[in-house]
Amino acid sequence: MQIDLNCDMGEGFGAYTLGQDEEIITLVSSINIACGFHAGDPHVMARTVRLARRCGVAIGAHPGLPDLLGFGRRDMACSPEEIADFLTYQIGALLAFCTAEGVELRHVKPHGALYNRAVQDERLVRAMAKTMARIDRNLLLVGLAGRNSRRMADIAAEESIAMVFEAFPDRAYTPEGTLVSRRLPGAVIHDPAEATARALSMVLDQEVAAIDGTMAPLAAHTLCIHGDNPQGMALAAAIRGGLEAAGVAIRPMRPV
Amino acid sequence: MQIDLNCDMGEGFGAYTLGQDEEIITLVSSINIACGFHAGDPHVMARTVRLARRCGVAIGAHPGLPDLLGFGRRDMACSPEEIADFLTYQIGALLAFCTAEGVELRHVKPHGALYNRAVQDERLVRAMAKTMARIDRNLLLVGLAGRNSRRMADIAAEESIAMVFEAFPDRAYTPEGTLVSRRLPGAVIHDPAEATARALSMVLDQEVAAIDGTMAPLAAHTLCIHGDNPQGMALAAAIRGGLEAAGVAIRPMRPV
Amino acid sequence: MQIDLNCDMGEGFGAYTLGQDEEIITLVSSINIACGFHAGDPHVMARTVRLARRCGVAIGAHPGLPDLLGFGRRDMACSPEEIADFLTYQIGALLAFCTAEGVELRHVKPHGALYNRAVQDERLVRAMAKTMARIDRNLLLVGLAGRNSRRMADIAAEESIAMVFEAFPDRAYTPEGTLVSRRLPGAVIHDPAEATARALSMVLDQEVAAIDGTMAPLAAHTLCIHGDNPQGMALAAAIRGGLEAAGVAIRPMRPV
Amino acid sequence: MQIDLNCDMGEGFGAYTLGQDEEIITLVSSINIACGFHAGDPHVMARTVRLARRCGVAIGAHPGLPDLLGFGRRDMACSPEEIADFLTYQIGALLAFCTAEGVELRHVKPHGALYNRAVQDERLVRAMAKTMARIDRNLLLVGLAGRNSRRMADIAAEESIAMVFEAFPDRAYTPEGTLVSRRLPGAVIHDPAEATARALSMVLDQEVAAIDGTMAPLAAHTLCIHGDNPQGMALAAAIRGGLEAAGVAIRPMRPV
Repeated sequence: MQIDLNCDMGEGFGAYTLGQDEEIITLVSSINIACGFHAGDPHVMARTVRLARRCGVAIGAHPGLPDLLGFGRRDMACSPEEIADFLTYQIGALLAFCTAEGVELRHVKPHGALYNRAVQDERLVRAMAKTMARIDRNLLLVGLAGRNSRRMADIAAEESIAMVFEAFPDRAYTPEGTLVSRRLPGAVIHDPAEATARALSMVLDQEVAAIDGTMAPLAAHTLCIHGDNPQGMALAAAIRGGLEAAGVAIRPMRPV
Repeated sequence: MQIDLNCDMGEGFGAYTLGQDEEIITLVSSINIACGFHAGDPHVMARTVRLARRCGVAIGAHPGLPDLLGFGRRDMACSPEEIADFLTYQIGALLAFCTAEGVELRHVKPHGALYNRAVQDERLVRAMAKTMARIDRNLLLVGLAGRNSRRMADIAAEESIAMVFEAFPDRAYTPEGTLVSRRLPGAVIHDPAEATARALSMVLDQEVAAIDGTMAPLAAHTLCIHGDNPQGMALAAAIRGGLEAAGVAIRPMRPV
Repeated sequence: MQIDLNCDMGEGFGAYTLGQDEEIITLVSSINIACGFHAGDPHVMARTVRLARRCGVAIGAHPGLPDLLGFGRRDMACSPEEIADFLTYQIGALLAFCTAEGVELRHVKPHGALYNRAVQDERLVRAMAKTMARIDRNLLLVGLAGRNSRRMADIAAEESIAMVFEAFPDRAYTPEGTLVSRRLPGAVIHDPAEATARALSMVLDQEVAAIDGTMAPLAAHTLCIHGDNPQGMALAAAIRGGLEAAGVAIRPMRPV
Repeated sequence: MQIDLNCDMGEGFGAYTLGQDEEIITLVSSINIACGFHAGDPHVMARTVRLARRCGVAIGAHPGLPDLLGFGRRDMACSPEEIADFLTYQIGALLAFCTAEGVELRHVKPHGALYNRAVQDERLVRAMAKTMARIDRNLLLVGLAGRNSRRMADIAAEESIAMVFEAFPDRAYTPEGTLVSRRLPGAVIHDPAEATARALSMVLDQEVAAIDGTMAPLAAHTLCIHGDNPQGMALAAAIRGGLEAAGVAIRPMRPV
């Protein structure tokens, strides 16, 4: 039994820092590094790749929309082809830092609005997989576990890219297995014990308690941990401890 | 007898175009593609790499300072280490477009203030060569032919990078073999016949007529052609025609 | 009988120029100056305000979304409140250049995606009018003449801002009086005589021949002229000449 | 006896925050608001102006170089005329937020590299004063108290702008009354009692103990407090408390 724990990192920019990268990295097996569009800059990227190498975690690109002001969270009316160019640029930039440090770039996890749009836009999934395959067919594409994950995986596979799916132990789910909007009450779980129980349920039983109390099936290969808020460390430590106590190995994501 | 002709390209951004890339590319053997900091964007980069592939010219990165407003021409108080990160980022971004199109990235020609500073700042040359070597030791570093070129080449070689040197047939030179400032009268040559004569002198005799009438020695491996002004095409066509008529082959730059 | 002719200006950025401002300004009575978000920079703004002062044309702000790469044409998921802050910032920046030159800022014409969204988003119109009123109640808000113009004017009036409406002699209209999408054939009129005839029909009869041949009513206070393409000057000169020959005075827009 | 206490504020950007504005503002009489070039964005500016209005502190613009990545701290080879345009733009943007909130813009304190360059570049001081005077002759220009302050004031006065001078109770000074570089040991004072003693010495005796133990004369009208580091609040509270205990009133800066 094994699972990947991943965390978004390298989200600072210039004089700004965000998150506690040096602490949270000790708890995960993979990190997703911002690539300079919605967050991150060349110096932060260089430092974060070196940190990942020292800590032995797997590295992924975390490309976003060109909107530092909006942190890549708000959608922009860009075509899938335009987004493909954004991905090529950002993945390439991070890849050069990986090459310089002699480490592998293993996965790509689109950020924010791109991540959300991918769940519902098949053309975007195809464009992202296609552009990744032209750079390196071994790159894994990370998407949201849930209702559309099988369809996303099929499309990516047609473009020679394997997908891995992600779940959020600190987020509430609908009975259909999708995330409850952050704007709704109860959307975010703050209790470490509850988050740990949900992580165990996700990993051991491939399901999660939905917000209405029913169990929703959920097949995930990686769990997302948040390092950008004060409670993040406590939650992450509890989740990792709980998984290890249950005999689950924490290992980087791999093709399925 | 052979020489490389190079031209800066892909200098548009969004709705803005600069230069006549599709015309000038037919006259050169190498192009230097802007990488999004001082000019260029992911879409322009994608188009320019495809254009280079179709035309069979060699591709180089043309990284600059993060100053779109100043077009990378004004110096910024960045350390060599900071500039190294800027180069890794930009070279990586372009490399991914090259990989996607199945073409090679052959050289790196720093842009504007970086190019000018390199002539006098050994720490910068070392930092640039070192960062290039960590990405790909076969990348060639392009610098200004002239007084300091031997010293620059030695430093780059210590970091395992070969340099190639560049001369400007449409620019006036001092007797010491350095460029006359654009602010001075006569700094730019507009007459195609004169520029052609200078190109021939540079290639066939490794020298150029300085602004005071004396001959200055100048060992160059590539001549820079400008495509961003109306006369550029006429000058470039004359230079290429004159070189070919003199039996000089136009070939991409190679290690020396 | 009088009408305003307006043109977007100051759309360059750094080394990039767009449009032939110095020529087209001689044909219009108002200009809309880009404010640095989708186009324009502080130097271009300074020069354009000085140019307007010399030429005696009325000045308006042309604020856009913070998306230089997309030229402010693609929509971004920003709230009306966020856009209000973008407007305050950009209007204020331009206003300072006007104050420095001793000229008046008369109107605000939102650019691109903002302009288009305003036609259908009452909350955006209200937010824009409200933010303008807090700066200067005499500022005029320019919107698209047509189906929703009366409703827009009512909302703006509730916030103490007068609107003026704009028509496009070089664009095809639907029978309902809205613009035909640029993606459709025939959407853009290139023939100076035809554009002139349409301008006359708009000004003299408050109507325009729709793409299906019927006449659509259209009440406009200002006609938009384009200076960013080669035919712009010819069209603009024909339109102005035709209007003047018909006894229509070309005068800056004013409250209605 | 009175003195102004000022603090840089509104230095966040998008998802990033910097400093504890809501706490530190309770201790000062003036704030300097970043204007979107080196830090700050339209939303942060709007919030910060509203915060200042609620707290009744005087507002100044804190314009910087267009270098968010470098936080405006590294110099760029811009001419005084270019910097004047940067100031007009940024001051105007902030002024509109002030107008919208019905509060006055009282001063301009250049940020980072601009502030430092002003001490030694008379052309820059002149350009800044001239551009301020064209917007509002009542604006006060803040500069570094010390060796060149009289010369700066004379130049600004020639352009109809009054200057006020600033001292730093938490920074070491040379015997000549200039700041000790942050790179040197002892450059920053962390002890609240020591900083308070220095503030009292500055205000009551117009002098400060230099790093070599001698007393350096220093005529300051405003003391700068830092809110962007953990100790800032403690230092600021101690300084304010010490000044008030000594009978010094804390009042916004005013023309001298």
